[in-house]
Amino acid sequence: MSTETPDLSNFWAVIPAGGAGTRLWPLSRQHSPKFLHDLTGSGRTLLQATVDRLQPTAGPRVMVVTGAVHRDAVMAQVPEVADVVAEPSPRDSMAAIGLAAALLERRDPEAVMGSFAADHVIADTAAFSATVRTAVTAARAGWLVTLGITPTHPATGFGYIRTGQADPELPGVHAVGEFVEKPDLATATEYLAAGTHLWNAGMFVVRPTVLLDLLADSDPAFAAALRTLAAAPERLEEIWATLPRIALDHAVAEPAAAAGRVAVVPVSFDWDDVGDFASLQGLVAQADEPVTVLGERDLVQAVDSSGIIVPAAGRAVAVVGLENVVVVDTGDALLVTTLDRAQDVKTVVARLAEQGRNDLV
Amino acid sequence: MSTETPDLSNFWAVIPAGGAGTRLWPLSRQHSPKFLHDLTGSGRTLLQATVDRLQPTAGPRVMVVTGAVHRDAVMAQVPEVADVVAEPSPRDSMAAIGLAAALLERRDPEAVMGSFAADHVIADTAAFSATVRTAVTAARAGWLVTLGITPTHPATGFGYIRTGQADPELPGVHAVGEFVEKPDLATATEYLAAGTHLWNAGMFVVRPTVLLDLLADSDPAFAAALRTLAAAPERLEEIWATLPRIALDHAVAEPAAAAGRVAVVPVSFDWDDVGDFASLQGLVAQADEPVTVLGERDLVQAVDSSGIIVPAAGRAVAVVGLENVVVVDTGDALLVTTLDRAQDVKTVVARLAEQGRNDLV
Repeated sequence: MSTETPDLSNFWAVIPAGGAGTRLWPLSRQHSPKFLHDLTGSGRTLLQATVDRLQPTAGPRVMVVTGAVHRDAVMAQVPEVADVVAEPSPRDSMAAIGLAAALLERRDPEAVMGSFAADHVIADTAAFSATVRTAVTAARAGWLVTLGITPTHPATGFGYIRTGQADPELPGVHAVGEFVEKPDLATATEYLAAGTHLWNAGMFVVRPTVLLDLLADSDPAFAAALRTLAAAPERLEEIWATLPRIALDHAVAEPAAAAGRVAVVPVSFDWDDVGDFASLQGLVAQADEPVTVLGERDLVQAVDSSGIIVPAAGRAVAVVGLENVVVVDTGDALLVTTLDRAQDVKTVVARLAEQGRNDLV
Repeated sequence: MSTETPDLSNFWAVIPAGGAGTRLWPLSRQHSPKFLHDLTGSGRTLLQATVDRLQPTAGPRVMVVTGAVHRDAVMAQVPEVADVVAEPSPRDSMAAIGLAAALLERRDPEAVMGSFAADHVIADTAAFSATVRTAVTAARAGWLVTLGITPTHPATGFGYIRTGQADPELPGVHAVGEFVEKPDLATATEYLAAGTHLWNAGMFVVRPTVLLDLLADSDPAFAAALRTLAAAPERLEEIWATLPRIALDHAVAEPAAAAGRVAVVPVSFDWDDVGDFASLQGLVAQADEPVTVLGERDLVQAVDSSGIIVPAAGRAVAVVGLENVVVVDTGDALLVTTLDRAQDVKTVVARLAEQGRNDLV
């Protein structure tokens, strides 16, 4: 990792705040997604903690991109963020982050931006800041720089990054060999054993101009539309509806990696995307307590049980004889599952949506 | 079973309506015990169904003995029952049923009474009525007549009755060899294989005079106090507080069996004391539905699960990946357990009581 201190005065943090967090239902809902919640009981919501974490590197230069429906909630939670960009409708990550890049490019052609999701948990701000500094230096050198998480288990829920050659000029920076889609368990186990792959956490640092030019290589009209939008914000509604729905990884990162334009900074800090209740339990579990209570402990009676209980409705919750159970009790909906099946909570949300229960999803 | 039709004109049904049903918490509470609930979704509460079941044999001659705190609820549920006797405080079954016996003895020295708990489920009223007729005939002959349930599994939650010699005069009636306390599983399995024992369901038929005289054999003062009470109901509060707290089985049935005074009528109708949620699930389960929903089916989303769900709070309940689960959702308390651990729900109630949560128990 680089020891020199780069100039951060034109480093901007972009925080895409989207995603319904359906695997955290019924805590997370479409109208109240997980980034707006203090899921870990830290006293700060995930969005607030993300802004806090970027303070040492980006200072006040923070831009949040979120859905129009969440704009007021975001502004209420992080009033210190002056730039809250509201997407008229969800159009996937390339449009959302590309708009931010186009706005920043107009503001400062020399700017460097870093994109960090609003709903990840990273406790070690110092290690995170050091990594960002390394990435900013590499981004100034022209790379699209991803942050790669060192795997701790053979996860099948993430895409992976195959690490390529180290950059001889930039300590701690490697070329990216390729991006790999979510692997099966056997493949993930191989990656873990070989130490050749990192988790793609969707965090990256890049000059906005580089990002938009890379996009222009594969879809010139898309890049042009984003730059038009930045110059003519009054045309947002009109142009936004015409933008392709595509993930930034597919639109830019994968083709750019194939062209040798993407770098990765391997990071060692603990990172969690709080993808489901098993992940949440891992984050907040106390070693000597078989049952993790997220909320008012006095509400819970646990007999011969383990797992996580969220008594968010203020009602008494009693669990008898269940191992690795997940009980999430909210005012209008109750979830009971196991840590092993935590991924499948999205099935419930899908069924409720099919049944037109928009009041619940 | 006797085929002659006995005179039922002086047959009285006594319904002891007590017991908190702690293993059915949080549906059943001290202030709203299980006999006041329509647990099976039949449209009638257990108490109402008990009164209905006695209509063909006892007609209007029904007396309910219940706690003073439940008197109004009982009268509201079964307004057709003229005799609702309120115990000033719980003093166990000998006092409760003995008081009913003393009242009936004064009303009609030739009366026969049958005692049937308010919280049992017996669907086959015709078979039940036929059994009662047989028992009434035997009671007129002087027996204390118990109804013995033919075991269907090696239950360890019931006391047993060892069947003795058949009464040569009364078809379907056997002397009782002895009463046996709740056995361990090995002993219960032996009983089941040998066919020598029946479950003691606490149902019996007897002349009130015979019952009180049997009590007088072991505790003359107790029997005298009950007869005094019946003659001077204004002394209820004063005398009630002095009565021994003892179960009728111990006070009368066991010593009387040893003296050769107790008979049993083996019965074959399906009987269930709805002792816990596993029992309840067995009563209401539908063969083709892995998850039994007691209540509004539309509230429940069950994915790869089996068991019983009671969505009594009107909230959505989702269960993912749990076999034999029990979820009982009420307005102020939620229970999650398994059919296997259904007996241990009483532990939760005990803990809540220890913590002074009288609002919840």
